[in-house]
Amino acid sequence: MSTVDLRYLDAHQYGQWLQQPGATVIVPVGAFEQHGPHLPMASDEILSGHMARGVAERTGAKVAAPMNYGYKSQQKSGGGDHLPGTISLDAATMIGITRSIVSSYLRQGVTRLVLLNGHYENYQFLYEGIDLALREGGFTTSKAGAPAVLLLSYWDYVTEQTLAEVYPDGFPGWDIEHGGVLETALMLHLQPELVDLDRAVDHPAAELPRFDRLPVVAERTPVTGCLSAPTGATADKGRLLYEQVTMSIAADLEEELGSSPA
Amino acid sequence: MSTVDLRYLDAHQYGQWLQQPGATVIVPVGAFEQHGPHLPMASDEILSGHMARGVAERTGAKVAAPMNYGYKSQQKSGGGDHLPGTISLDAATMIGITRSIVSSYLRQGVTRLVLLNGHYENYQFLYEGIDLALREGGFTTSKAGAPAVLLLSYWDYVTEQTLAEVYPDGFPGWDIEHGGVLETALMLHLQPELVDLDRAVDHPAAELPRFDRLPVVAERTPVTGCLSAPTGATADKGRLLYEQVTMSIAADLEEELGSSPA
Amino acid sequence: MSTVDLRYLDAHQYGQWLQQPGATVIVPVGAFEQHGPHLPMASDEILSGHMARGVAERTGAKVAAPMNYGYKSQQKSGGGDHLPGTISLDAATMIGITRSIVSSYLRQGVTRLVLLNGHYENYQFLYEGIDLALREGGFTTSKAGAPAVLLLSYWDYVTEQTLAEVYPDGFPGWDIEHGGVLETALMLHLQPELVDLDRAVDHPAAELPRFDRLPVVAERTPVTGCLSAPTGATADKGRLLYEQVTMSIAADLEEELGSSPA
Amino acid sequence: MSTVDLRYLDAHQYGQWLQQPGATVIVPVGAFEQHGPHLPMASDEILSGHMARGVAERTGAKVAAPMNYGYKSQQKSGGGDHLPGTISLDAATMIGITRSIVSSYLRQGVTRLVLLNGHYENYQFLYEGIDLALREGGFTTSKAGAPAVLLLSYWDYVTEQTLAEVYPDGFPGWDIEHGGVLETALMLHLQPELVDLDRAVDHPAAELPRFDRLPVVAERTPVTGCLSAPTGATADKGRLLYEQVTMSIAADLEEELGSSPA
Amino acid sequence: MSTVDLRYLDAHQYGQWLQQPGATVIVPVGAFEQHGPHLPMASDEILSGHMARGVAERTGAKVAAPMNYGYKSQQKSGGGDHLPGTISLDAATMIGITRSIVSSYLRQGVTRLVLLNGHYENYQFLYEGIDLALREGGFTTSKAGAPAVLLLSYWDYVTEQTLAEVYPDGFPGWDIEHGGVLETALMLHLQPELVDLDRAVDHPAAELPRFDRLPVVAERTPVTGCLSAPTGATADKGRLLYEQVTMSIAADLEEELGSSPA
Amino acid sequence: MSTVDLRYLDAHQYGQWLQQPGATVIVPVGAFEQHGPHLPMASDEILSGHMARGVAERTGAKVAAPMNYGYKSQQKSGGGDHLPGTISLDAATMIGITRSIVSSYLRQGVTRLVLLNGHYENYQFLYEGIDLALREGGFTTSKAGAPAVLLLSYWDYVTEQTLAEVYPDGFPGWDIEHGGVLETALMLHLQPELVDLDRAVDHPAAELPRFDRLPVVAERTPVTGCLSAPTGATADKGRLLYEQVTMSIAADLEEELGSSPA
Repeated sequence: MSTVDLRYLDAHQYGQWLQQPGATVIVPVGAFEQHGPHLPMASDEILSGHMARGVAERTGAKVAAPMNYGYKSQQKSGGGDHLPGTISLDAATMIGITRSIVSSYLRQGVTRLVLLNGHYENYQFLYEGIDLALREGGFTTSKAGAPAVLLLSYWDYVTEQTLAEVYPDGFPGWDIEHGGVLETALMLHLQPELVDLDRAVDHPAAELPRFDRLPVVAERTPVTGCLSAPTGATADKGRLLYEQVTMSIAADLEEELGSSPA
Repeated sequence: MSTVDLRYLDAHQYGQWLQQPGATVIVPVGAFEQHGPHLPMASDEILSGHMARGVAERTGAKVAAPMNYGYKSQQKSGGGDHLPGTISLDAATMIGITRSIVSSYLRQGVTRLVLLNGHYENYQFLYEGIDLALREGGFTTSKAGAPAVLLLSYWDYVTEQTLAEVYPDGFPGWDIEHGGVLETALMLHLQPELVDLDRAVDHPAAELPRFDRLPVVAERTPVTGCLSAPTGATADKGRLLYEQVTMSIAADLEEELGSSPA
Repeated sequence: MSTVDLRYLDAHQYGQWLQQPGATVIVPVGAFEQHGPHLPMASDEILSGHMARGVAERTGAKVAAPMNYGYKSQQKSGGGDHLPGTISLDAATMIGITRSIVSSYLRQGVTRLVLLNGHYENYQFLYEGIDLALREGGFTTSKAGAPAVLLLSYWDYVTEQTLAEVYPDGFPGWDIEHGGVLETALMLHLQPELVDLDRAVDHPAAELPRFDRLPVVAERTPVTGCLSAPTGATADKGRLLYEQVTMSIAADLEEELGSSPA
Repeated sequence: MSTVDLRYLDAHQYGQWLQQPGATVIVPVGAFEQHGPHLPMASDEILSGHMARGVAERTGAKVAAPMNYGYKSQQKSGGGDHLPGTISLDAATMIGITRSIVSSYLRQGVTRLVLLNGHYENYQFLYEGIDLALREGGFTTSKAGAPAVLLLSYWDYVTEQTLAEVYPDGFPGWDIEHGGVLETALMLHLQPELVDLDRAVDHPAAELPRFDRLPVVAERTPVTGCLSAPTGATADKGRLLYEQVTMSIAADLEEELGSSPA
Repeated sequence: MSTVDLRYLDAHQYGQWLQQPGATVIVPVGAFEQHGPHLPMASDEILSGHMARGVAERTGAKVAAPMNYGYKSQQKSGGGDHLPGTISLDAATMIGITRSIVSSYLRQGVTRLVLLNGHYENYQFLYEGIDLALREGGFTTSKAGAPAVLLLSYWDYVTEQTLAEVYPDGFPGWDIEHGGVLETALMLHLQPELVDLDRAVDHPAAELPRFDRLPVVAERTPVTGCLSAPTGATADKGRLLYEQVTMSIAADLEEELGSSPA
Repeated sequence: MSTVDLRYLDAHQYGQWLQQPGATVIVPVGAFEQHGPHLPMASDEILSGHMARGVAERTGAKVAAPMNYGYKSQQKSGGGDHLPGTISLDAATMIGITRSIVSSYLRQGVTRLVLLNGHYENYQFLYEGIDLALREGGFTTSKAGAPAVLLLSYWDYVTEQTLAEVYPDGFPGWDIEHGGVLETALMLHLQPELVDLDRAVDHPAAELPRFDRLPVVAERTPVTGCLSAPTGATADKGRLLYEQVTMSIAADLEEELGSSPA
């Protein structure tokens, strides 16, 4: 039985753990979205889950059941919601799930909650859901005794140094990193059996306009569904990314929230 | 790589499979809810997922990422939403997820969709979400070419004969089956490493009033969080339940929707 | 002037009554739904209203204006929302009415409120509306001073003994009791002028699948709109049902909420 | 059995009537609101119901089950939502009921629908609900074949001549007509057993500011809850009002929608 | 730099002003709506803004950024939502903006807030938004320390005497005053460069039915989009209206809320 | 009369202009938010309005009334919603306004619509509103005849070359550009009378964590409310930014949408 995964814990053990000062719950947030021909559709759920467990193992936090569906994929960051294999939630629902889950944890006495995001488009809706839950609970300032809810996207923790090692020819930007080097490398390290590099197609990075246009002009998304090719992704780079990012997030959590119980 | 789990498939393989006549997608629906001291909190997600995969293996359907959070646990059927370990969605959110997911599949051309429910309280909200998605898509009658969305709870498929074998002393009723014989037996068959029978407490079945009272009178729920004891649950009974139910659901799907592609 | 019906009371008399300890308000909940060729479309409103008044006469409670529209009729329990004569509310609206009405009564100081349901499909939405109203009012536990809101469906109070008398050949199950023996007998006892048994058609009980399918396959509902025939319904059985059920509900209310003022 | 009240009709008779050209359904809209010490709390439901039936008898229309709860009473037109005996719906719910009911009738093929309002504060929310239902149904213009939904408040049909007879000393304005001469006279004509003139208090008309202030300054509403006294109300004036208004509305309906079937 | 317009103030100056007792904020509410061939589409925003600034100059209040879009134009009061140049918000959004803005000001400590409306159709939705914001903030009574939010439409402040001077041939009623004498006169006084009287068409006042019909019968609205002609509108009448109305509103504000800081 | 500002146009002129092929409407989107001691609270509305008019003058487009309130300010990009002078809309409302306005234009036949954003936090909610409006209108693909709605933030059009000239010591990143060099320079060029550089405080750029924490730790925002100092901002840099950005956006609009009518 995994000691960090709340899903596999029984409620009575959880109840006892909850009593300890510093008990921290991390909710991984993913999506169900096409990730090209070489990565599985649940990649964002899988990666945010691994990141959350990695952080939990370093800090003593527990990992909640993931939010496994995400907001609509956008052409500039994920290819678009029109592609087969992308199953999306609208904004009201995404906000509602976040609000419900955060409220539930707050009512149970959890005072340290982290939403660890793995799908770019989710961020603002997660923010709104957290804000609504806190207002609902009457928590409007960070004064003593107030809960602390942190929201972060794991790629914001990749350091310049790591970037330089992972992208020796220069980092092309997070916006086109969808099914590209970062996600592929991480999957090769964490769940290689779910990657089929033979199916990966090499093509230049998508050049998307600076605006969003709706309805989407489908031809602007490469037929692979990837905005950049995974060329150069290796399990070693994945390990580097995973180790550095989980360490950095863990450091932030301990500094911000204090230590979790063992 | 599992051949029935859409999560682990890539979008291009999915796109090809989708073209075949009869392609059926099953969405398992669970909850995150306390299940007493001997079962894990994700039991409803775990069991509906196994049921969905069992049906898919018999029919050629594919299994979508689960809806892994559910509607508020009610005292008469799950102990109540006030218990530690129960993280619930409100009705609007539960309806919204269902509507979004069903709409997404319909827009991608899926015409045979099944929601397989494993948490009693979810049913009516799933129904509403499906109805809204179909109206949104303009599908108001079952005429030729219309999609078919089925909604079912797996315990409705347990036959009288199976019941008699599982409950030799008489079946106490579905309403108090929460963390009881059925769920425990199924878990013992399907994921025995997540069951700790040593922690199971034996107590008489809860006698709950015929009304719901809110706010809940907490003392009416047994301290275990179970409405009946799992006494008598065995892996063999679990196997019987699992085999009979998946076979019965598979039969209904084939009769109602025709065969899925291999 | 009816002494139990709040509709016909003036606000000043109501205000005085409200000051008395134990003042209990019962809100009957019905639907506007086809009930076959022999019963009126408002049957659920009519029957829940009679039940509420019957209980009120036994307990000193008052009866509020009914919720006279209900949630969408479902094929397995009411024939379906596609039938002429069924005018339905969606879930958000049903929840909203419940939340608004319960909140209004709570704000006025009513601390004992009962929602007495007469339309199967309503139940979960009434539950959600009550829960939201209580959270809005800050009432999350049943501690001293908190209001108590009870939710019940009247048929859950029919005893085994009554069932045996009403259905001497065996009870076919509540799910297909729509325009059948129970409702027809009650109407014959309570409002015989609204029943036209000459128009009742005798047909075997509908055999509906264990799943819901949407859009509905209209042919599965008998052309009468009834899921079972009212054959054998009599005013005497109606009286028995009415007397037993109102007595049982009254007993529960007095035990749970104490006595109402005279 | 009333021939105009859909509540008491069975669905099959309704279905046949619906086939006839010109079939018109009138939905009375009321409120549950304090009406002073001499009128019952359901006065708005009662009066809009009588008006609807009166019009239906003149035109061959049918009367639907009423919308019997209304939008929040406002101080300038009804005394205020803070008074005991006023049970109100919020705007979203009021709009939702309207939308649901109008949509249901449109889906069943009703093409002539009238909402007859008896509670001042409801109007704009009814309008929005109708507009949403028509957009949902794809009806955005009044071209041939489109349904027609009429919305009216019955007091807008009182003629200058009738006003002069009912208020020989001058008409004080609709805004303070709440529990005043008009409603009391109508009730004396239509349901005298529900009026207790002995309890009516005579006081000058309320002088309310030209603004609304929230939260309400409770002292601005007369303690009676009436904004003007019913002094001078008689059953004869009620009959005059009732006859003139139902005739005028009936004339408009026939001119606008054509004749209904007998 | 305008001293009354919050838009052009910096936040630190605003923060200091806010500390003073009596600080009052006025939010003008308009619409974006066709106003015939002689007035600009933003007329309602422009006029409510001028009224707000006029009142602010008399009282020391400050004027917030306007709500510059409004609820759907209705045929009986504005010509209808189908006319080019009318860009409308639905009810939920109109309520949401009001609720959000009022809540924001309350949270910042503003205790005297005025919504000054210039578009007839807005009123009820503004009322609901204010009510929801106050409930959300826990302000349900006007006891000491509670904030006061006033809602008013500026035309309700036009006195009988002013009406007699502006309409020497008799006042035709507010309902058809859309692009008519009042609005045109005010614009001629306040922003004459935005009025093109040469384009004004003279036609008799629209005779609209006493009901609303949806979908709208477009032909009932005069082709000008005005419900009455602006014939007789002059800048002098505009000045009279503006001076009298701003003085009357200022008097009410000072009486109701006390004086604002200089 | 401004020839590009729809607010000041009458509806009949607008109606004629609308008939021309290529007619494009630009909706500026701002916020009402503290911008430090040297810039006015409406800065985002003012700047997006200037950008929109600048683009319109180059392309023949028209500028709609602005969306002048925005989504909640976030600490990492605007200082936070807790600061005096920030009046925010919640997500549902922001989405609702966008949906309503886009739907209104689409219904009137506008097929080229641009939302030009000037407040970072708005973007995702504008995206959702556009998406919902297009689905509502039945426009799900970009095939011939479909409308095109573009969404952009003006700072995404600042070129590397311009950045190098505006920030000779290196560009610190868009996230902390709130009341900093870019906005101040633009205001100095476009509305210098609203800038008070004497009040600007010089402080190092805020170092904010990589996560969002709620409730906000207020002390992390500099007391100025600016995330970076405006040191070095000049009117000349503002002119450069304004000219380059409006030219670049205009070029994109013409390439994407074709030319507008003169």
